[in-house]
Amino acid sequence: MKLGALNEQALLKKLTGAWETGSDVLTGVGDDCAVLRTPQPDRFLLFKTDAVVEGVHFTRRTPARLIGRKALARALSDIAAMGGKPRFAVVTVGAPRSEEVRRLKEAYRGLEILARRWKTDLVGGETVKARDLFFSVALIGETKGHRPVLRSSARAGDELWVTGTLGATQRRKHLLFEPRLREGEWLARNRLASAMMDVSDGLGADLPRLASASKLAFEVDPERLPGARGTTLRQMLQDGEDYELLIAVPPGKADVLRRRWPFSCKITRIGKLVKQAAQKRDHALWRGYDHFSQR
Amino acid sequence: MKLGALNEQALLKKLTGAWETGSDVLTGVGDDCAVLRTPQPDRFLLFKTDAVVEGVHFTRRTPARLIGRKALARALSDIAAMGGKPRFAVVTVGAPRSEEVRRLKEAYRGLEILARRWKTDLVGGETVKARDLFFSVALIGETKGHRPVLRSSARAGDELWVTGTLGATQRRKHLLFEPRLREGEWLARNRLASAMMDVSDGLGADLPRLASASKLAFEVDPERLPGARGTTLRQMLQDGEDYELLIAVPPGKADVLRRRWPFSCKITRIGKLVKQAAQKRDHALWRGYDHFSQR
Repeated sequence: MKLGALNEQALLKKLTGAWETGSDVLTGVGDDCAVLRTPQPDRFLLFKTDAVVEGVHFTRRTPARLIGRKALARALSDIAAMGGKPRFAVVTVGAPRSEEVRRLKEAYRGLEILARRWKTDLVGGETVKARDLFFSVALIGETKGHRPVLRSSARAGDELWVTGTLGATQRRKHLLFEPRLREGEWLARNRLASAMMDVSDGLGADLPRLASASKLAFEVDPERLPGARGTTLRQMLQDGEDYELLIAVPPGKADVLRRRWPFSCKITRIGKLVKQAAQKRDHALWRGYDHFSQR
Repeated sequence: MKLGALNEQALLKKLTGAWETGSDVLTGVGDDCAVLRTPQPDRFLLFKTDAVVEGVHFTRRTPARLIGRKALARALSDIAAMGGKPRFAVVTVGAPRSEEVRRLKEAYRGLEILARRWKTDLVGGETVKARDLFFSVALIGETKGHRPVLRSSARAGDELWVTGTLGATQRRKHLLFEPRLREGEWLARNRLASAMMDVSDGLGADLPRLASASKLAFEVDPERLPGARGTTLRQMLQDGEDYELLIAVPPGKADVLRRRWPFSCKITRIGKLVKQAAQKRDHALWRGYDHFSQR
């Protein structure tokens, strides 16, 4: 069987399904980051790797600074989704011999500026020959004083909220987005999120993942979805690369969230999580969005 | 300027030369791993990323298990070179849609077997589309109770030792080597190494790096080099991919090292480190090995 016959989730399951981990691993494959215990009970390490490849995540014409920026920003977004702070990053670049040194330097510059903004120390670099240009970033983050917020810890009845707007990739948001690190950490520190993830493949793909990790189903009111100006419902669900936070909020805490939310980016209630048995009754809304269908 | 005009060291310097790091970073770019402080003064984190690319580090004909094995073993060797223990790894695989799922599964199997052998938890995986097959491994290791051994802490007069044999890449050592984790940790724990690194680009390239990181020069007796059977001096210096440890040993400790060395792999004294001014007198031996020349 060729790779092309599988989607990424199915492939990952085939490749990593048998992995077992020791007691220092709170969460491994399947969440935004791996979560690792430390000797201090209130401190956790977050560990994430992410790669961007020419022709997939950017093109020859993408400004080089934005390529480097994106390589780091994607991994930062995953740290945000756990409510963590980024700490240390290492960068591998693969490039052909014909690549311009200036283009690589520009890409690194974009990465450095974002790293400085988010107080992330760049502590290692490696270069390898490759036919396609790629950047692979590995990131260590941490939470101190609170536990990371997983995908799997939502409960039936929790409200679903989302930051910012959805479906805006056409406006280069995928290159220019600001990872929701402050928002994610605030939500985690104030224990307002029972589960959280970042929306990187589109709400239509990611919401079912959060629900399924928590063994729940969902109900969403499409009228409430915070679309970027001029986006259709389909774009909001399927564009991908929103890099917003999808948050499960216990119903008793929604009022606090609404009143105390201190950030300029908006946050919108879009629906709720329900028991899996409950959902089958009301599935019609999501028909037509194939990868939205639930098991 | 094209990348092809620079060697990897010069390129890395251009890309990462301006990086500055905070006080929690003991060593960043330029050693085998980054070394990070933790809240416990006798515990350090090691952080490393490494990629292998088809056509560079392996071919279409390399058995898939050995590809995955190598991807992890190279990073493990860097942990060994600091005297650390590996703890957690995440794996990114880039592959074209035409790649066989079975080949990837086999590669992961090779990686898993080595991870289990060295008690390394695989905690994250990601797949991306790419024209060339590549594996990028990021690894977190640690030292407890002793400091990691850097490249930069040797002193003039320290003896130079090397584990195992050199120049054996032609016998698939580059695919089958066992990372010197036990040896490296033993050396660090017993404070027998003042500086250490792994020989991955050949002694001819790596010894000058260790010497230069310690602001020293070196004298090596070519007669003493532990060549694999049938290898020439040039092969011992330039083959690369030995994945042995190169160790600086304070002269007062060499006797302890010799008497107490508990491993089946051999360890050989090959020379010593000297002040930089001293070396210029005796450079003739290394002439002809271009990348061996010292600044």
